[in-house]
Amino acid sequence: MSIIVQKYGGTSVATTERIQAVADRIVRTREAGHDVVVVVSAMGDTTDELLRMAHEIADRPEPRELDMLLTAGERIAMSLLAIAVCARGCRAASYTGSQAGIITDTHHGAAKIIEIRPKRIIESLETGNVVIVAGFQGLSTSYDITTLGRGGSDTTAVALAAALDAEVCEIYTDVDGVFTADPRVVPEARKLDRITYEEMLELAAAGAKVLQSRSVEYARRHDVRVHVRSSFHDGPGTWVVKEEEMEVGMEAPLISGVALDVTEAKITFDEVPDRPGIAAKLFRAVADQGVNVDMIVQNVSHEGRTDMSFTVPRDDVVKIKAALDDIAHEVGAVRFSVDEDIAKVSLVGAGMKSHPGVAADMFEAIAAEGINIEMISTSPIRVSCVVRAADGERAARAIHRKFGLQG
Amino acid sequence: MSIIVQKYGGTSVATTERIQAVADRIVRTREAGHDVVVVVSAMGDTTDELLRMAHEIADRPEPRELDMLLTAGERIAMSLLAIAVCARGCRAASYTGSQAGIITDTHHGAAKIIEIRPKRIIESLETGNVVIVAGFQGLSTSYDITTLGRGGSDTTAVALAAALDAEVCEIYTDVDGVFTADPRVVPEARKLDRITYEEMLELAAAGAKVLQSRSVEYARRHDVRVHVRSSFHDGPGTWVVKEEEMEVGMEAPLISGVALDVTEAKITFDEVPDRPGIAAKLFRAVADQGVNVDMIVQNVSHEGRTDMSFTVPRDDVVKIKAALDDIAHEVGAVRFSVDEDIAKVSLVGAGMKSHPGVAADMFEAIAAEGINIEMISTSPIRVSCVVRAADGERAARAIHRKFGLQG
Repeated sequence: MSIIVQKYGGTSVATTERIQAVADRIVRTREAGHDVVVVVSAMGDTTDELLRMAHEIADRPEPRELDMLLTAGERIAMSLLAIAVCARGCRAASYTGSQAGIITDTHHGAAKIIEIRPKRIIESLETGNVVIVAGFQGLSTSYDITTLGRGGSDTTAVALAAALDAEVCEIYTDVDGVFTADPRVVPEARKLDRITYEEMLELAAAGAKVLQSRSVEYARRHDVRVHVRSSFHDGPGTWVVKEEEMEVGMEAPLISGVALDVTEAKITFDEVPDRPGIAAKLFRAVADQGVNVDMIVQNVSHEGRTDMSFTVPRDDVVKIKAALDDIAHEVGAVRFSVDEDIAKVSLVGAGMKSHPGVAADMFEAIAAEGINIEMISTSPIRVSCVVRAADGERAARAIHRKFGLQG
Repeated sequence: MSIIVQKYGGTSVATTERIQAVADRIVRTREAGHDVVVVVSAMGDTTDELLRMAHEIADRPEPRELDMLLTAGERIAMSLLAIAVCARGCRAASYTGSQAGIITDTHHGAAKIIEIRPKRIIESLETGNVVIVAGFQGLSTSYDITTLGRGGSDTTAVALAAALDAEVCEIYTDVDGVFTADPRVVPEARKLDRITYEEMLELAAAGAKVLQSRSVEYARRHDVRVHVRSSFHDGPGTWVVKEEEMEVGMEAPLISGVALDVTEAKITFDEVPDRPGIAAKLFRAVADQGVNVDMIVQNVSHEGRTDMSFTVPRDDVVKIKAALDDIAHEVGAVRFSVDEDIAKVSLVGAGMKSHPGVAADMFEAIAAEGINIEMISTSPIRVSCVVRAADGERAARAIHRKFGLQG
């Protein structure tokens, strides 16, 4: 029998009423003749509530214990969902990440899946159960409970779909799929029918929240077909597929979408001596604090000195401040500054590889709004610009219009 | 190093502030040079809240899933407590019932502990951790999560104390210990310094809520010294000990206490044919519904028929109503009635074995208040009387006075 993996996020199971609706959908899928494996997140803001209590007790909660705490959220959601499915006369059983054989490294709070041992899930499916698995969590190689970090439930779902050779991994959300831009920012944004893994990765990294980049990367590496769709109706959403699977007979669309990210801060080191090894030292220090750097821009040097800018999640600035002080002193930077008032607007499209002038068009659209560009970085299928935070939404709308993305 | 097991109930960890206070006490115990194993219940009314959600979703939640759900409560409390202990610079790690090696049968909702495999706990203690264990839960022989039923955390604590050969099992509550009566009913009630396992068992069965009878039975069988004490101050509470350990050179006190239970209902079968096998049939039918019968009274028969009364938890009446209808018809009872308006008042004391006249004194005390006794049942160290619900507290106070229990 074909296996379908369905992932429901926290909004989809925020109340007992919504859990009932999700159970209805699961039972319909089962009755359509599929084996169903469901991955579920914690209800609504349960995780935030648990975090709040932990921080009432300690400024820096012990990571092992914080993971133990947070995994209670998915446990509640998954057992309530199993109760709802059982109440509909359909057999179901819920399993923690540990019971489902999701083995991770020992990095509490941001563990990586290193192996899936789906024996128990397969046995449970064989006895006729709908299998419901807690997202976001696993068991470490030293037998402690771990969490995969925010959005980890997407990764759980994709990893299970890969391990079970599922027909599809359906990601249910409160939007209809992946859009050419966030409809709250760009009202004329249009839903995409298909998008490549690579484009989805760039969009996720550029701030689109619909899928977590780790899960897209996992799906791409294991050829998992992902379908992002609404938990409120049955219409099709957006398929995330290989580039070869894009509409036959058509060229890849030039542009997939525009993303806006207002969660980053820009850090600039002024007049760093232009010597080998300086950048390595700087970014090693940042990495040692467990902080991911997004954009890095270094320009040509003048008189043996150069400016170096990079962006990090704004929430992580406090973690690296002390290390940056040390490094600025060590490398002899004249000064460094933190600017939290920025927005990053990105244009993503697999087609831009073979279309020169895309970046220029984007810069023109921004300039026509009288908005100054402060940083630029590119990949083969993405161009990102940092602008003032207040200008972000206007820039996104202008770019969306410029490329005719409203369809 | 000597091991102390401490159990904290839901009231003791109801808020993050109380969790901090409990952490302080744990750290003090550790600093006094003991190995500490802590068993903790869910915070405040978390369990009721989870039950409420489950019943919003289904009238009869799937038992396996309900256990999965409810165990989230202890998980939250134990990890928050571990975070609080760690924040005080004292190493701590929390373990689920499953991780702590608490193996149970497969009876979801009321599982029995069949084995403790404390290997992981011992290893954790050896690395210098305070070990914090989720009460009330275990792992079944078929690898599913189970709960031990209400009050099961006491049993977890006593069972761990037995398996670890702990010096003492301290049960922390919101009262100062075991009293000669519930101080809310009998204001002059006095705290007992010691009580025997047998008396404690009778008091627990008679409605005293301070300790769950299963845990007392477990402690008696495994010789676990239990100390019931307040989580609000450091004074001594009540020790539950073997009869031989009661004060040397003194006779066992005649009476330990008076208990009042207003949670039962009386069921009476009128004019049942007085034939062998009738009682067996009746109580098998009740047991088949998973309901525990407390008192059973059958009087001599007249003209081949007899009346039979018994008490069950009031909350269980609805479960057995249909079975009772069938049985009444089958055994040819003239009628049966359910009376939910009763109170059971009990007098417990190991000394009464060798003192005739205790029961008579008790009945006199009740009669002097003009209260009618409707049922009587006795054990070697207990006398229980059923009276009208409205008369229960007055009867308890009169008996307490009669036996001079105020000290």
